[in-house]
Amino acid sequence: MPVFLTTNDADFEARFTDLLNAKREDSPDVDAIVAGIIHDVRTRGDAALVELTNKFDRMDLTAADLRITDAEIEAAVATVSDEERAALELAAERIRAYHAEQMPEDKQWTDAAGATLGWRWSAVSAAGLYVPGGLASYPSSVLMNAIPAKVAGVERLCITVPTPDGQINPLVLLAAKIAGVDEIYRVGGAQAVAALAYGTETIAPVDKITGPGNAFVAAAKRRVFGKVGIDMIAGPSEILVIADKDNNPDWIALDLLSQAEHDESAQSLLITDDADFGRAVAAAVDKRLETLERRAIAGPSWRDYGAVIVVKDLDEAAALSNRIAPEHLELCVADPVALSEQTIHAGAIFLGQYTPEAIGDYIGGPNHVLPTARSARFSSGLSVMDFIKRTTLSQMTPEALKAIGPGAAVLAKSESLEAHGLSVLARLEKLNR
Amino acid sequence: MPVFLTTNDADFEARFTDLLNAKREDSPDVDAIVAGIIHDVRTRGDAALVELTNKFDRMDLTAADLRITDAEIEAAVATVSDEERAALELAAERIRAYHAEQMPEDKQWTDAAGATLGWRWSAVSAAGLYVPGGLASYPSSVLMNAIPAKVAGVERLCITVPTPDGQINPLVLLAAKIAGVDEIYRVGGAQAVAALAYGTETIAPVDKITGPGNAFVAAAKRRVFGKVGIDMIAGPSEILVIADKDNNPDWIALDLLSQAEHDESAQSLLITDDADFGRAVAAAVDKRLETLERRAIAGPSWRDYGAVIVVKDLDEAAALSNRIAPEHLELCVADPVALSEQTIHAGAIFLGQYTPEAIGDYIGGPNHVLPTARSARFSSGLSVMDFIKRTTLSQMTPEALKAIGPGAAVLAKSESLEAHGLSVLARLEKLNR
Repeated sequence: MPVFLTTNDADFEARFTDLLNAKREDSPDVDAIVAGIIHDVRTRGDAALVELTNKFDRMDLTAADLRITDAEIEAAVATVSDEERAALELAAERIRAYHAEQMPEDKQWTDAAGATLGWRWSAVSAAGLYVPGGLASYPSSVLMNAIPAKVAGVERLCITVPTPDGQINPLVLLAAKIAGVDEIYRVGGAQAVAALAYGTETIAPVDKITGPGNAFVAAAKRRVFGKVGIDMIAGPSEILVIADKDNNPDWIALDLLSQAEHDESAQSLLITDDADFGRAVAAAVDKRLETLERRAIAGPSWRDYGAVIVVKDLDEAAALSNRIAPEHLELCVADPVALSEQTIHAGAIFLGQYTPEAIGDYIGGPNHVLPTARSARFSSGLSVMDFIKRTTLSQMTPEALKAIGPGAAVLAKSESLEAHGLSVLARLEKLNR
Repeated sequence: MPVFLTTNDADFEARFTDLLNAKREDSPDVDAIVAGIIHDVRTRGDAALVELTNKFDRMDLTAADLRITDAEIEAAVATVSDEERAALELAAERIRAYHAEQMPEDKQWTDAAGATLGWRWSAVSAAGLYVPGGLASYPSSVLMNAIPAKVAGVERLCITVPTPDGQINPLVLLAAKIAGVDEIYRVGGAQAVAALAYGTETIAPVDKITGPGNAFVAAAKRRVFGKVGIDMIAGPSEILVIADKDNNPDWIALDLLSQAEHDESAQSLLITDDADFGRAVAAAVDKRLETLERRAIAGPSWRDYGAVIVVKDLDEAAALSNRIAPEHLELCVADPVALSEQTIHAGAIFLGQYTPEAIGDYIGGPNHVLPTARSARFSSGLSVMDFIKRTTLSQMTPEALKAIGPGAAVLAKSESLEAHGLSVLARLEKLNR
């Protein structure tokens, strides 16, 4: 049984704060190891990459084997069932359509002073996506990372994916193919991140690295940040469901378990205005846990980090939700749209009882790479914006410079930056002659 | 005399690569010290903040003195000249107008499957701006950081600024007032960043921290990233001017010097298709350096990191510019708009000979906080986007769930995530009954 709180409890605030601050993830300090790996790949290139891959993934590669060939990709994807292929294609199409809507417009205007101002967006030239190997090698994540990059206009998109003992998920390769990925390399860990950031003889460097990974990958991404761009450092998954009593407790239980089954550190929270409904959901979770394939993961997650919180009304629910700033927020209430206008700190909102969060993981269209660990307070999920950048544009006419230049010269002087001021004044001198 | 290269030189590629890779900044490794400071402020709050401030800034404060009072602000800003006040107000007005154009729209639509999809933007609730003390305490930077936050709708905006020996720049306080900053604290260094991220008794924690600082501030921002959002870690300033011979060499020299005077590590580059013009600009720089107030800074910068590069045509100039990915790019050519369409990796572009870069530092409207060290390949300058975040929205009807739910269930099964699939299938079972 997880925590069961009501906002009426005398100790509610203390217990809720504990819940917010619970450290769910032990990040081992692997920074020194990662620094060594990055240095090794930077200085020795392919030789280091091959050695590290052979060691960690128990392989016997040469540099010539690092890239997965088109023939290997075709052979693997031929093993995928028609049903799975169709589902991946539908997902890809929907994700592409959603992300195409995100492309922002360039803008330019001339203001009253005669200054023409604006900006222009352009794509990152080359991006690298890290795809984990083994259990967490999700084809859906390949689509969610690769499609926004391609919609944004990234010319060269490559994937690194470790293939421990030579194993690779054919669905990952198919997802990469459908998404239009240009190059795939069988490397993982900090060494893959180093190769993407600094390049080796075989892997040309990229400008931006995205995608989830273990502690080594996360530490490597932090280290190469600045040399290249990175996406967020994602933590364990979370869901908050706000539900009133007019819901099927079993559906809500499954929604909670669909996060809990990801990871023992995942967090599933229910806020409801009906204590009996809360108890019914908890009972439904327990029942499902009896048979769930991943009960050994979902059980501890629910027991250790799950919670049912009973509130007096939905306003209170919205206020708590904003303090939690959940990655995923399901609103299973009579008027979910109205409630969504109050719940402003959330990565993704799923409205109404026919929108289980799992739809968003796979096929809804919005991205499933979302801010965790309360970072929805200040950050957004992955989008085309992660693969484009803005260049600001300014053009002064002589008249515009005469109108606003003197102000710039005053401010330059006040900051003791003489050349700044002179660069304006020298031009004004000619214009005023 | 700085480097003088022509693309015809046999060793051009090697020398250009050296120029690109020149390490201009020695970041001292202050990480261990910073980790200690952050831990101290996290655990002891105001007591640590006061101790550290008194030690590093040679002050004698108590916790009650940390916040600069309205009366102190009023007294300081009363000393600012009318001319400076008017210039700051004009700059603020223009920066506000430009950034207001950046606010993106919310979007929502219903697709063929009956799924209603979209997103909503919302502001970060609280932001903290770090303002350096002493020589680099620039009122223009206060405007450039604070105004986008307020345009974005940040409710609580606070500034930390160290006041070594009790000194503070009245223009910084006036800029903060004009920009609508809500709270100002006289603290700096890693301890200020820690206070903003974790909060103390006096300073409530914020969600996002922006603003430039020294190595300690940069290391502290890196450390608290994740707990709060941060902006980029800025390096030394850079300018690339692409100019043809129809320019005044002295104007271009002043533009180059306006970056060089910031910092001995700043970099000023000229690309021209006319070698004689290149030599004329180099001579004009030398002449200006004889008398420039900051010649002790600008001289070494130009000598050590400056360069004149002679190209055969403007296409070649654009290609080199994209490899440099400059923070500031001035296009002083006959058709700057056409050239700007080729120079896609740049933080800010200034078009034509009447748009000196200094206009953009102060008063043009676009932000002057821009990506340095080639990071314009993958990142953008500061904007309202840094103070807002996007929540994605999905709402399925029963019909939409029937249309796309089965695909989600197939993908969930392929990823061995049973509860994900069941959360969809349980609903479909009822709908198909």
